[in-house]
Amino acid sequence: MNVYVMTLRCDDRPGIVHATSGAIVALAGNILENDQFTDVATGQFCMRTRFASAADPSSVTARLETDLAGFSPVLGLRLEHERRRCLVMVSSFDHCLADLLYRREQGDLPLDIVAVVSNHPDLAPLAERYHVPFHEVPVSDETKPDAENHLRNLLAAYAVDFVVLARYMQILSPELCAQWSGRIINIHHSFLPGFRGARPYHQAYERGVKLIGATAHFVTSDLDEGPIIEQDVVRVSHAHRPLDMVSLGRDIERTVLARAVRLVAEDRVAIVGQRTVIFSQ
Amino acid sequence: MNVYVMTLRCDDRPGIVHATSGAIVALAGNILENDQFTDVATGQFCMRTRFASAADPSSVTARLETDLAGFSPVLGLRLEHERRRCLVMVSSFDHCLADLLYRREQGDLPLDIVAVVSNHPDLAPLAERYHVPFHEVPVSDETKPDAENHLRNLLAAYAVDFVVLARYMQILSPELCAQWSGRIINIHHSFLPGFRGARPYHQAYERGVKLIGATAHFVTSDLDEGPIIEQDVVRVSHAHRPLDMVSLGRDIERTVLARAVRLVAEDRVAIVGQRTVIFSQ
Amino acid sequence: MNVYVMTLRCDDRPGIVHATSGAIVALAGNILENDQFTDVATGQFCMRTRFASAADPSSVTARLETDLAGFSPVLGLRLEHERRRCLVMVSSFDHCLADLLYRREQGDLPLDIVAVVSNHPDLAPLAERYHVPFHEVPVSDETKPDAENHLRNLLAAYAVDFVVLARYMQILSPELCAQWSGRIINIHHSFLPGFRGARPYHQAYERGVKLIGATAHFVTSDLDEGPIIEQDVVRVSHAHRPLDMVSLGRDIERTVLARAVRLVAEDRVAIVGQRTVIFSQ
Amino acid sequence: MNVYVMTLRCDDRPGIVHATSGAIVALAGNILENDQFTDVATGQFCMRTRFASAADPSSVTARLETDLAGFSPVLGLRLEHERRRCLVMVSSFDHCLADLLYRREQGDLPLDIVAVVSNHPDLAPLAERYHVPFHEVPVSDETKPDAENHLRNLLAAYAVDFVVLARYMQILSPELCAQWSGRIINIHHSFLPGFRGARPYHQAYERGVKLIGATAHFVTSDLDEGPIIEQDVVRVSHAHRPLDMVSLGRDIERTVLARAVRLVAEDRVAIVGQRTVIFSQ
Repeated sequence: MNVYVMTLRCDDRPGIVHATSGAIVALAGNILENDQFTDVATGQFCMRTRFASAADPSSVTARLETDLAGFSPVLGLRLEHERRRCLVMVSSFDHCLADLLYRREQGDLPLDIVAVVSNHPDLAPLAERYHVPFHEVPVSDETKPDAENHLRNLLAAYAVDFVVLARYMQILSPELCAQWSGRIINIHHSFLPGFRGARPYHQAYERGVKLIGATAHFVTSDLDEGPIIEQDVVRVSHAHRPLDMVSLGRDIERTVLARAVRLVAEDRVAIVGQRTVIFSQ
Repeated sequence: MNVYVMTLRCDDRPGIVHATSGAIVALAGNILENDQFTDVATGQFCMRTRFASAADPSSVTARLETDLAGFSPVLGLRLEHERRRCLVMVSSFDHCLADLLYRREQGDLPLDIVAVVSNHPDLAPLAERYHVPFHEVPVSDETKPDAENHLRNLLAAYAVDFVVLARYMQILSPELCAQWSGRIINIHHSFLPGFRGARPYHQAYERGVKLIGATAHFVTSDLDEGPIIEQDVVRVSHAHRPLDMVSLGRDIERTVLARAVRLVAEDRVAIVGQRTVIFSQ
Repeated sequence: MNVYVMTLRCDDRPGIVHATSGAIVALAGNILENDQFTDVATGQFCMRTRFASAADPSSVTARLETDLAGFSPVLGLRLEHERRRCLVMVSSFDHCLADLLYRREQGDLPLDIVAVVSNHPDLAPLAERYHVPFHEVPVSDETKPDAENHLRNLLAAYAVDFVVLARYMQILSPELCAQWSGRIINIHHSFLPGFRGARPYHQAYERGVKLIGATAHFVTSDLDEGPIIEQDVVRVSHAHRPLDMVSLGRDIERTVLARAVRLVAEDRVAIVGQRTVIFSQ
Repeated sequence: MNVYVMTLRCDDRPGIVHATSGAIVALAGNILENDQFTDVATGQFCMRTRFASAADPSSVTARLETDLAGFSPVLGLRLEHERRRCLVMVSSFDHCLADLLYRREQGDLPLDIVAVVSNHPDLAPLAERYHVPFHEVPVSDETKPDAENHLRNLLAAYAVDFVVLARYMQILSPELCAQWSGRIINIHHSFLPGFRGARPYHQAYERGVKLIGATAHFVTSDLDEGPIIEQDVVRVSHAHRPLDMVSLGRDIERTVLARAVRLVAEDRVAIVGQRTVIFSQ
């Protein structure tokens, strides 16, 4: 038996679930998980269905496309065991990359980390330890276009499904953001929308907040403004100095990013306008 | 248009979703929410479907029963605006009852609190303030059978759907528990399975735990052992004495109970063996 | 024996603890709790000491003032059983006021709520139920100065120690804020600094955050910018509409406000620059 | 200037703070942090004082011992920069060890990990990567006394201050537990006192709890019963199978253990009867 993960998004109207479940019955399939949501603000319907069937992928695709044609859906389909291919970008901080590599090795993250790209050489040994190819792509104001072309080539060469900015300290061009819309995840080290921009822990200290947080979001050309995937916070006190917050923040950053990456790797995230729909376990 | 909430439980096999969605299409309906779960341990399939249809309740029931007959399901159906009828039992502590009455008044709890029953007269004024009938049903070892008969009469007279023990300090008989299986919710003032039985906050103090909690669960004849609906915890320190924990615990108890009651009132809780399936928002 | 709560703030230098503990020894006293903090950013030293002594208040004050004169401290002293006097201001939402009154009645809040002031008559019955005087002081742009004079008279007449804005929807004048600096607590229904200003839950929905929060802070003339006393958050999903967030938010607002009020009532909050030091239990 | 951390425990009576602060004044010192607690159940007084002084350690010790002799205290004193020496014991699971080593390298944990001891060879490469000596000490029923003698020799040779059982799957003898009482930290993969003993995540799944947790505690001869240092929980749903809980649990285990180890390494934990007093930041 094959296990498939199907995602679907279209305008909401009656009959979608029936048409989908009918296609699966026709494929002699059995639904294992099904989640759906109708967003009243946009009128969009989203669904994620995990099902088993002996049919091969091309038959399944053909059947779904035929039976659902009337709804003009955006359809996604993959065999569950064919893992998403992810490229991670970093600068010098290693805690997020180290955590992603560790979790993948433990079997906690169902994805393939196909390459690490950095504007610094520092984290090459970490990637090497986990046998992941490491590419140094330095970036300066002058070389940015070239660097992004290099990156585009790597994304194509590795057949990358999505990109993770694991504390990558460079800003991607609006063109690249638009091209990879909904497929680049960033971790911001604050509880957005508070403390946008640089040195958020220092901002948090100045403001005297009692909780600090981290936010994983899709990247858009509007810095720190893309759809939020996951957030969490940790309590701090007056006794925590900015560097203590940096240290506490590392834990939250890596945890929040790992959760977001897992959700995306399992096709559990749909984007509806500026917001995400999360089909969590 | 009518909005319906349907619940279904049966042995898992292919075709249930298709049959259900087919029935809804036949009723010219539209699915608004759909949640399902297959429990691999028991092989049970559970589903909650909220849908809109112009059809009347008897037509809907007839259609669903006919189309789903092959699966021998346990079916539930109600119009969403027909609220569940709940009877609350208390002793002398008022925080859980006060909170349930307040939330219902605010419109946060979609249910009707049809009566309050207590073995003490103390909380009569509180019920009265919210215009809910109050019945004092004293209980002693000798009068317990009579008291439970009185209670049974009240449950019938008020056409009660489910019972909430909001810090009710008496133990119900095994017969009553069995009769109302899956329809009596209790709040226990500890994070079960830790600190079963009496004076859990004092037990927690003695043991020196760093978090205390509360547990809402269905009542079975096995005390503090029924399927858990909801739990939560709050942090305590060495400086909290047992009475401080009682005070902190009140917050957790009322919050956890309110969440559990809401889930049950919205038909979001299925029981599978000794565990619950929660179709949360 | 009398139990005293002393607070102290001064520039940090050696010998303060020794001078204080020496004064307490001289008063034949025993320290029950002691908390202190040195803020490196401002060089300020803060301390809260709870101690028992048979000496009367004027002797204690005299001794402390004499022995600590060299440090030019801001000193506070009160008998623990002489509770702080608090005036609560509200508009039409009742959840924060209801919670404060309930907790005080339960013995969870060691303070006296001496009066409730509102710009609407709606919550008079709630105050009355707890036998707390209620004063309606309507406010319009023209009457604001008169209204604030009325308020000042009430604050004097009731010998108020601090004011709680429990979802009071009017903005106090900069003069009043300055006059009562560090003695007015507000609850803002967002996790500041995110979503300042009006309709924060709607802003949170638009932005698609995964946690919403509440913030209790001291009031300054700079709206939503005073020193933060306490904050907390609750998880939301894509399925929560703004009104669901309002409902969930009520729980967080009342909890966060009650914690902040308790901390202030027990003299556990010191202000150092724009930040608070919390001497929690 | 030297920075010292002093800890003190004795029967509570008036004058301890004054005597201590007097000694520090006599040493021309300045108190940087001071925390104290009087446990009413046992009548014990505990204090942790961090202070700066130009005096050398032997002068400081002499002065404190002289001035505090009347209270017969248990005194601890160390230079803050002289880090605690910690030996970590593991079996095959690496997540807790990997986390401790990583945090120490990042500068998040102020201690020295002087050696790793395991009954399996599996984690030798991990220790080696961080340049920490690794000792394989196999244990069977017959060899246990010899193995513990070997361990005792290592503890002496490395001048170990405290031991961390980072998912070490062997039970230490009552003699060793007694000898190292208050100096061995264990991480148990459940929210104690729930789910003592083996396979706690499977127990948690069977019971259908909605939160799972981890507990760091001091080891006594009574398995899983020693004084608790730190606990935390994470939410689970009906959809999480035991192996999912194992995966989620890894995060909680490593976080809780790291917090507990840090508290002990900074002398922030006092034991009073069966409970701990935590002087947290």
